[in-house]
Amino acid sequence: MAESSRPWELHLELELIKQIRRKALALAPCHSLTRPPKGIGDDCAVVIPNPGNDLLITTDTICEGIHFRLSYFSPLFLGRKLASVNLSDIAAMGGQPRWALLNMEVPPDLDKADSSFWQVFFKGLCQRLCQFGAILIGGDTVSAPSDRLSLSLSLIGEIKTGMACYRSGAKPGDLIYCSGYTGEAACGLTLLENPELMRFIPGPVRKRLCLKHLDPLPRISLGTALSKVGVNSLIDTSDGIASDLAHIAEESGLRAIVFQDILPVSRAVRAFCRAYCMKKGDFLQNLPLEYVLFGGEDFELIWTISPKLAKIAEQVATEVLGIKPFLLGRMEKGKGCYLDTGLKRIDISFKGYEH
Amino acid sequence: MAESSRPWELHLELELIKQIRRKALALAPCHSLTRPPKGIGDDCAVVIPNPGNDLLITTDTICEGIHFRLSYFSPLFLGRKLASVNLSDIAAMGGQPRWALLNMEVPPDLDKADSSFWQVFFKGLCQRLCQFGAILIGGDTVSAPSDRLSLSLSLIGEIKTGMACYRSGAKPGDLIYCSGYTGEAACGLTLLENPELMRFIPGPVRKRLCLKHLDPLPRISLGTALSKVGVNSLIDTSDGIASDLAHIAEESGLRAIVFQDILPVSRAVRAFCRAYCMKKGDFLQNLPLEYVLFGGEDFELIWTISPKLAKIAEQVATEVLGIKPFLLGRMEKGKGCYLDTGLKRIDISFKGYEH
Repeated sequence: MAESSRPWELHLELELIKQIRRKALALAPCHSLTRPPKGIGDDCAVVIPNPGNDLLITTDTICEGIHFRLSYFSPLFLGRKLASVNLSDIAAMGGQPRWALLNMEVPPDLDKADSSFWQVFFKGLCQRLCQFGAILIGGDTVSAPSDRLSLSLSLIGEIKTGMACYRSGAKPGDLIYCSGYTGEAACGLTLLENPELMRFIPGPVRKRLCLKHLDPLPRISLGTALSKVGVNSLIDTSDGIASDLAHIAEESGLRAIVFQDILPVSRAVRAFCRAYCMKKGDFLQNLPLEYVLFGGEDFELIWTISPKLAKIAEQVATEVLGIKPFLLGRMEKGKGCYLDTGLKRIDISFKGYEH
Repeated sequence: MAESSRPWELHLELELIKQIRRKALALAPCHSLTRPPKGIGDDCAVVIPNPGNDLLITTDTICEGIHFRLSYFSPLFLGRKLASVNLSDIAAMGGQPRWALLNMEVPPDLDKADSSFWQVFFKGLCQRLCQFGAILIGGDTVSAPSDRLSLSLSLIGEIKTGMACYRSGAKPGDLIYCSGYTGEAACGLTLLENPELMRFIPGPVRKRLCLKHLDPLPRISLGTALSKVGVNSLIDTSDGIASDLAHIAEESGLRAIVFQDILPVSRAVRAFCRAYCMKKGDFLQNLPLEYVLFGGEDFELIWTISPKLAKIAEQVATEVLGIKPFLLGRMEKGKGCYLDTGLKRIDISFKGYEH
């Protein structure tokens, strides 16, 4: 119990703290936003917040076998994705990421502790954090109670006082926009989980979809730009449009309507669905729509905004993204998230996909 | 994989977020230190830091089967201990705890999710946080990759800019003090892990030792008081005197000397060791000393201070604690942590106990 696990734990923790400290400090000069933290390896890390800011605080856990498999996740992409998932939460408030803490449950597999696995993982994690102005300042390591790796990242960001964008601010009549295609990451996950599908999909499509799952980029610049424009509500597409819009609807006490005929379906999603149906020998007409509505982890941003400001936000988003954002629908009085097919309205609140 | 685990995960997460929000907000008015946070259940929690403060950031993970067993940890004590372990890290910098995030890996045992287990756990967690001026503002829940519960708490504190007390500040000639008896929590753990020993120990001693392990209190008031007095270094006794002083020695580039003849051994530790030896039929002369030096998790504070200021710190500590703190030894040039027995000096750096 505590006695027997401690020596190994202590050893790994000390070694990892030294690694983290080296990596974190080596990367520190690449951004001037955050003054270097003190106290890494101490009881707490100590950082100096910028005056006139509120703090944004978020955390996410990913477990081997539930959220990722090491069979298709390289340690570099694993580090990057852990960072991106959390960075995206800061983006979804309109904030600037600053300081991160890592909790690791490491399975009793000493290869992983000794090998280059952790070197490469920390490289991915620290570089991705640094790319968006954040820095790893500490953490905790324990030996896992199972044979699976589990990682939690907590991230603190800053935003000018009063400028945070909540899920709860949507107004009736608001237009709903999305920063990019959805469903691609979920197609990528299906491919990675079912490699026998790979040969039915053209190479560039395969690569695009898999990378969308393995290596998503958080929309930090877009989030800060939108918070300045004055969007009414903001969220990232982590659980899929249907769930994420249901959150906005619930928190704002409104109904979100998505119009099927304007829903953006990317060419890659179409190509994937064609190949999937061909392989299964079954024509699933609604498959692209299901991926687009219910597929998670694209980490795009969804915002609602008054029609008066919508065009300005569209221009700002186009400048940041390089492409025009997509109009999805409208907020109305009522509750839930509905798909308007032109013929009827279907309740899709918090629905996930099942194949 | 992701698909199959999501519905349950999502359900649990939404339900727990609602529970957390209710509990956290219900407890919010009991302290006026922190303005109520916004954004619980949003992508991030949003809090307003106090101007003129640095942030202290820490995190700790505890796993069932490694750090605790549910056979002797009630959910109330589990919640309290998770809070205390993290609060103690803030105490060890001299700071004031403010905002906490909880990451949970919940085993696929729906009883736990439905029953009063979580109600009571959150009561313990939120009350203990609140007792020391902190508030739970968010977190993440995933289904565990094993059948064991795993909990991480991340805690953010504040301290007046420049006032944080590090492990690295010890000076040669500094006196080393400790706020209370050590070894008691480790005796308690031995008892809880070996219930057959219980009947050899008087009831009040048993209770004291077990509670020291199950329900330790962080030394927040003492930490803030000591930071104002101007201690040179500060740490909490989480890994045992030998390891914790070795940290101060390493980070300060010095040697820590502990004098055996002044080491405080509590009556409870003596009574436990007598009973332990009687049960084993073996006289282990060094057993109390081993518990005092190598037993962890007492969460007392150890500080080093110049001899000139030592008396003032002693008075301040006595006022806060109600008892005099214990003098343990002295910092010298050199490295490592040594026990001075009067006859020789023994290197005890980072040593843990093994029975």
